[in-house]
Order: sequence, then C-alpha cells, then structure tokens
Amino acid sequence: MISTSAVDAYIQKNSARFVEELKELCSFPSISNHGAEAVKPARDWLGERLGRFTDRVETLEAGGMPALYAEVPGAGRRKLLLYQHYDVQPVDPIELWDSKPFEPAEKDGRIIARGVADDKADVMARIHAVETLKKVGAIPVTLRFLIEGEEEIGSKTFEKIAHEHSSKLSADGCLWESGTSFDESGRPTLQFGCRGLVYLQLRVRFLNFDQHSGLASIYPSAAMYLIEALASLRDQDMNIRIEGFYDGVVPPTEADRRMMAKIDPEVEQRKQLVGFERLVRDPKPENVIEQLLFTPTCNIAGVTIGYQGPGSKTVLPAEVTAKLDFRLIPNQEPAHVLESLRKHLDSHGFEKVEIVWSDSEKPARSDPDSDVAKAMIECVRELHGEPILWPFMQATGPMHPVVADLGIPTVLPVGVGRPDNRVHAPNENIHAADYINAIRLMCRVWERFGA
Amino acid sequence: MISTSAVDAYIQKNSARFVEELKELCSFPSISNHGAEAVKPARDWLGERLGRFTDRVETLEAGGMPALYAEVPGAGRRKLLLYQHYDVQPVDPIELWDSKPFEPAEKDGRIIARGVADDKADVMARIHAVETLKKVGAIPVTLRFLIEGEEEIGSKTFEKIAHEHSSKLSADGCLWESGTSFDESGRPTLQFGCRGLVYLQLRVRFLNFDQHSGLASIYPSAAMYLIEALASLRDQDMNIRIEGFYDGVVPPTEADRRMMAKIDPEVEQRKQLVGFERLVRDPKPENVIEQLLFTPTCNIAGVTIGYQGPGSKTVLPAEVTAKLDFRLIPNQEPAHVLESLRKHLDSHGFEKVEIVWSDSEKPARSDPDSDVAKAMIECVRELHGEPILWPFMQATGPMHPVVADLGIPTVLPVGVGRPDNRVHAPNENIHAADYINAIRLMCRVWERFGA
Repeated sequence: MISTSAVDAYIQKNSARFVEELKELCSFPSISNHGAEAVKPARDWLGERLGRFTDRVETLEAGGMPALYAEVPGAGRRKLLLYQHYDVQPVDPIELWDSKPFEPAEKDGRIIARGVADDKADVMARIHAVETLKKVGAIPVTLRFLIEGEEEIGSKTFEKIAHEHSSKLSADGCLWESGTSFDESGRPTLQFGCRGLVYLQLRVRFLNFDQHSGLASIYPSAAMYLIEALASLRDQDMNIRIEGFYDGVVPPTEADRRMMAKIDPEVEQRKQLVGFERLVRDPKPENVIEQLLFTPTCNIAGVTIGYQGPGSKTVLPAEVTAKLDFRLIPNQEPAHVLESLRKHLDSHGFEKVEIVWSDSEKPARSDPDSDVAKAMIECVRELHGEPILWPFMQATGPMHPVVADLGIPTVLPVGVGRPDNRVHAPNENIHAADYINAIRLMCRVWERFGA
Repeated sequence: MISTSAVDAYIQKNSARFVEELKELCSFPSISNHGAEAVKPARDWLGERLGRFTDRVETLEAGGMPALYAEVPGAGRRKLLLYQHYDVQPVDPIELWDSKPFEPAEKDGRIIARGVADDKADVMARIHAVETLKKVGAIPVTLRFLIEGEEEIGSKTFEKIAHEHSSKLSADGCLWESGTSFDESGRPTLQFGCRGLVYLQLRVRFLNFDQHSGLASIYPSAAMYLIEALASLRDQDMNIRIEGFYDGVVPPTEADRRMMAKIDPEVEQRKQLVGFERLVRDPKPENVIEQLLFTPTCNIAGVTIGYQGPGSKTVLPAEVTAKLDFRLIPNQEPAHVLESLRKHLDSHGFEKVEIVWSDSEKPARSDPDSDVAKAMIECVRELHGEPILWPFMQATGPMHPVVADLGIPTVLPVGVGRPDNRVHAPNENIHAADYINAIRLMCRVWERFGA
C-alpha cells in the first residue's frame, strides 16, 4: 500500500504539467462526426502516451472508428476495465464560443475547450494516475484501458468490439467515464447505469426543387407535413403518443426510490443557471429526479427547413429534414421503439416521412452493491464526503455490452463533471482543481479495489 | 411611326451584344438581403447606362435602398411608367447551382444566373428598347423608369417613395415587371394585378443555452412549442385556422371567372416539372387556376432548430426560429393578418412565440380594359398569338401604391418568364431568344400606346 500522502504530494508537485498535458489532448479536434481522419491524431497521441507505461497498446477495430486499447499490468490479481472515449461533439454554434474550441483557454480557474469535460479529462486523469502510482510505487490492479472513438456518434461498433475482444475486456469491475460528478451544492455523485438512445433523421420530399412561395396555394408543403408529423409524436409535457413506445419500461424499485429520495433536485439552482420558467410537467421538487431518470424522451434535436439566412426569402421548400433523439430507460428496446415510430407515422397519415438513418444504444443498469461500486463509494466518501447515489444517469453510454453481455459490475465514478460544464454546448469547461482531484481519486480507488 | 421591320432588324443585328450586356448586369451580386452595399454597384451601372439616353437620371430615397429613376422624354403627349427592380434573391442553397450564380453561363440557348429572370431581363430589355427606338427613329411616349432596389425584401420603402415622388411617377399607364409570360404550352400571358404578402420571423426561447438532450425529461423544448404553434396555423390543404385571416377576401367576379376559364391549368406539365404527387386540395383541373390565385397562403419558408450538420448531435435547443410568408388576395389587409396571427398565438397557448419582425405588401388589382392593357394585348397578339389573361398574378409586387394610390392603370407584360425559369431557386435561367423578343415587344407597345 502506497501512502496517500506520497501520492498526493506527487500529484500536487506535477499539477501544472498535468493541466498542460490535458490541454494538449484537448487541442485535437477529434469530432467523430467529421469522420475517421478527424479522430486519428488524438488516438495516436494517446497511444504514444500509454506506450510510456506498457507495451500492450493496440487498436481494436470492428468497422467503425478504432478503439484504443492498453493493458497496464498490476501487482494484484484483480483486473479493472477503464472505459473512456477520445472523440468529442461538434462545436456548433461556433459563434457562441468565447474562445476557440480547440485552443484550450484558462479563465477563473477553469479550462475551456470542446471535449475537456466530455471526456478528455477522464482519459487524461487516468493516464496521469498511472504515471503517479508507477513513480511513487506500483500499479495495484491490472488496468485495461478501452478508449473508444465514436461515443459521440452513438458507439456504432462498440458492441461488436466488446463481443469480438471479450477476453481482452474481461475484468472484475469497470470504471466508466464519469457523468455529472458534483451537484449544484458540490456534493459528489455516483451512478450505476445509463439510459439508452435512438437517434434518427427524418426526411420529407414532395417537389423536385424549391418553388416560389406563391405556388403554395397549389403545391404541397413538405415543411407542413413534417411539422404535423413531429407535432403528432408527443405533447409539451413529454407524453409520447407513439403506441408501444413505453413497452418494456420498468418502474423504479423501492431501492431506486430510496436512492433518489436522497438526491437534491436543485430546482432553484437549475432555474438560475438554465433559465427555464417551469419544468416539464411542473413536478413537485421530490419528484424531479424520478422524472429526470424515469421519463423516456422524444427530443427534437434539429430541423432543417428552407431559408435560414438573414431577412426574407419567399420559398416553398422541396425537401425538409429533422433529427430526433429518444432517451430510453430499462428495459426499452431501441429496435422496438424504431418499429413503433414507423408504425405511428404510417397509421397517422405520415407514411411519406422517411426514416433516413438511425443509431441506437440500449439502456443499462448495474448493481450499486458490487465490489467496485463499494470501493468507489468509500474512496469518494473519504475524499469528497458522502456521495449521492443515482440508480443510473440521465445520459447515455455504450454500457450495455459491458454490463449485460460481459457481465462486469460497473460504476460511473466521480470525475470533473459539474452542472455548469456546458457539455455538448459552447464554452464547455471544467475546473482545473477538479481535474487534479480526479487523478487523486483514481489512485485511491485502484488501491482500494486491489487491496 | 417607325417601321416594325427596321426595329426588328436593328434588334436582330445587335442581339449578341444585347445578350452580353444583360449578362454583364447579371454579374452584379445585388442581393438586397445582404444590405445597401451589396446593391449599389448594380444601381450605379444602370444609372450610367440610362444616362446615355437622358440627363434626367437620379436616385429616389426614402430611408431604404435607393430606387433608380430616369425620365426619357418622348415625342407624344402620353407618359408611361416602367416598373422594374435591380435587386435579386439570395442564392441558397448554393451547392445546388451547376454554375456560379453571378458568373452568367450560357447553355442550350439559355442564360443562367441569379436574377436573370427576376428581374434583370426586364430592366435590360427596356433599356435596349430605348436604344433601338432612338437609333431607328424616336421614342414615342415619355418613359419614366422606376427601378427599385428592395423588391426581393418586401419593397419596404416603395410606398413612401411613390407617395413622396408622385409627380415624377404620374403617368397614363404603367408597365410592371413581367411575371410568368408564357405557360407550359408557350402561350403568352398577361396579368393585371398581384397578391399581397406578409413575411415574418417567429422565435421561441426557453433556455439560456443549449442543453444535453437527456435533460429533455425535465427542461421544456422550444422546438416542440414552435412546432405545435406552426401546426396550429393551417392544415395540409391550406385551410388556415387563424381567426380573421380571411376577412376582406373578395371572391372572383364573373369577369374573373371568364378569364380564368381560358387559362390552361397545365396540371400534367406542372407535375412532370415540379414532381408533386397531388396538388393541395386535389382540385378538378378547371378549378386549379382559381385555387392558385384565390387561395391565400400561410407558407413555412424556413425553420431553424438545433443541430443541422452531418450525423448526430444530442442537443435540446435553447432558441428556435421560423420564417413564414402569407400571400394575400384582394382585399385582405396585411396589418389585420398580422394582428389576427398574434391573437391566434395568444389564444391557443402560444403566447411565448414572439413575432420578431415582419414586412408586408398589399394586394392590388387593375382594370384589364385600360388603354395600356389594350395596347399590350394587341401587340402580344401580333407578336406571340392570343394572350391568356390573368386577373392578377399569384406572386407579389409593390403595385398597390401605383395602382391604388397613384391611380395608374397597370399591366404585367409579356417578358421572359417561363415555368422552368427556376425563379428564386438554384439555376435561375431564361431563354436568350425570349430576351430578344422582350425587346421587340417593348418597342411595339410603346409605339402603340403613343400612337
């Protein structure tokens, strides 16, 4: 057992360099949405970094963006799988950024860059934890890094990677990328699963080319058709009208309800930060968390119709599109949701709405009483105070193959996430101090789990 | 009276140069939507051209884009007002153009450029007609050119210009810019008025910044709110649900019906060109023209929501917008329509939909039996065969101040317009031969009206 003070001292001494190296990783514009060439430099850079600690570095491929894999042998018999991703979201709307998304800036103790919160701080903190333990003593458990390259575009081939390389990924526990790690009041939070996702693009095309809008008296409007189709899917209170959509939904258990009762919904803090007038369904404060987790969604992520420049253009658009995402909860099935949507469109007079493409991920839940969960809970308690436990997080990750197919107990640890990180939005940022603490926590958990 | 053959001979001899000069005018990117600087070079160039024939060239200003005015004195006592515009529509979607919009191309007898059909061919044909008659003989009527610079953005200050400079614009008749001049079968068409327009932008903003789409379980969706508001305005068959929208509508007269009965609806030709499966309301062929003219519209010209790039981005958009245009028929009042829309939104639970800005033009009708109309009908009959007469055109122009306030009988002449001109769309084009005929017709009508 390495002394905690020696570990902390090493981290403290190297903290400025650690932050600089995180910024270096964040300078790679690894937007998976932009294709394989966009993500490769970040992966290569990480491969070189991990190669400093082990010769077992390779890429795992299954037709999509390659995942980076590295095994760092440990002293103990236990193996720990570490899941991260090196890709990031697009930067639109670029005009709302105060600094350039891939020229990491520091301001008021924060590091600002696309991907710094989601998920490059996790990747780098774990590499810095390896460095720290190697320098101060030894790695207590065998670490299996799996850093994928298409998390932000739906982890299209992750399931295949997990199945084809199951022996490389097998472990006694898994630390996922961190979710929202601290609530508005600064209390640490842990999660034990995630929601699923169906993402898809719709298209309606009625005319060969855009028409002068005066012709709208006789020519059909693809825009109006799509708008009516979208309006038919749900109401303002997220009651989804697609028959069969809620099939498979498992309501919260008593254990879930006990966990959720301890979570502060932080309604006033959210209101101040996010600026809404009222929440969907106007819930009582004690029901907000259950609504957040257990209300599957149908969200309009994007709509592209006609003229969008300044001023006016009088046009009847020939073709229109929309992007939707559905967040699913255990045990909704993405394939069934997609099929139900198609049936809904066809039976409500919207058979001309085409589903152009779709991606999906299944929801996943893990046991909050597993050994890896217990080790994490104890270490967080020591470092940050009593953690708030979430049955699963509101976001999505490709956790299902790990949790369900490989059967590895999984926990979403405390990392750098705070409610004002602006994840997926302009000016994504983290606190530099949180980054240093993430390295410290990682070292402790590995030691505890390996003990 | 100058001999028609001398006029035609001059035009024929100079036709290649005339086409080149039209292309030169079309090389100016005079998109009024892009502001005053964008339109000035085209106006200056036209001012210089008109200055070759008269020293009475000036700009008329009333706070918006200046209009170009030129009086060319004529031999006879009659005065003829010529209305055109030198501004053009934006070029989006630029990727669908086969050549650059402001580098005029020639292909298969066509000239391809933004604005060539709407309305630079009219402007230039009339200048070339002046040159022709001056060279061959004399100008038979006093011509008053009014070439405005903001027709494509709603002629915001045209009414003011018309009122403030009414003595300069007064005339015994007015030739408007040409509309669709030939139907699918090549028959010439004339119109005696136009529809009105209300164009506006809507906005909904519920959140301070875009959110991770998982939060759609509790945060309200501006997108869904706007979509429901839009869906409430009308149905797929252009039945508009805004109370008071149809106030003031005058049904077709018996004379209107007689004119419209002679118009071929060209349903099959339209279908082949435009590619629709069915027309709005599925009308009988004999009702298509009445529906085209006498059905006022509520058209979705543009919607801007969330992520529109390639692939996926899971975002709950904070702010969304839409652009709508309403085509109005005599005697709907734009101000009343706008007021009715606001009331509709407020009374249907959409009070948070903001009308950010709006522009409007009133509908206008003129007498098809006026002297200028008769002169035009006769000359078209001689040059192109029996014209098809439209009570008014389906499109909009700022005709109301001229027809109603200044009381000038007005006709939309035959010009270069054909159904496949792709006006307002990519690859806008005209037939070069139509351009030459437009010059010939103009010379004849001026002579006939001045006789």
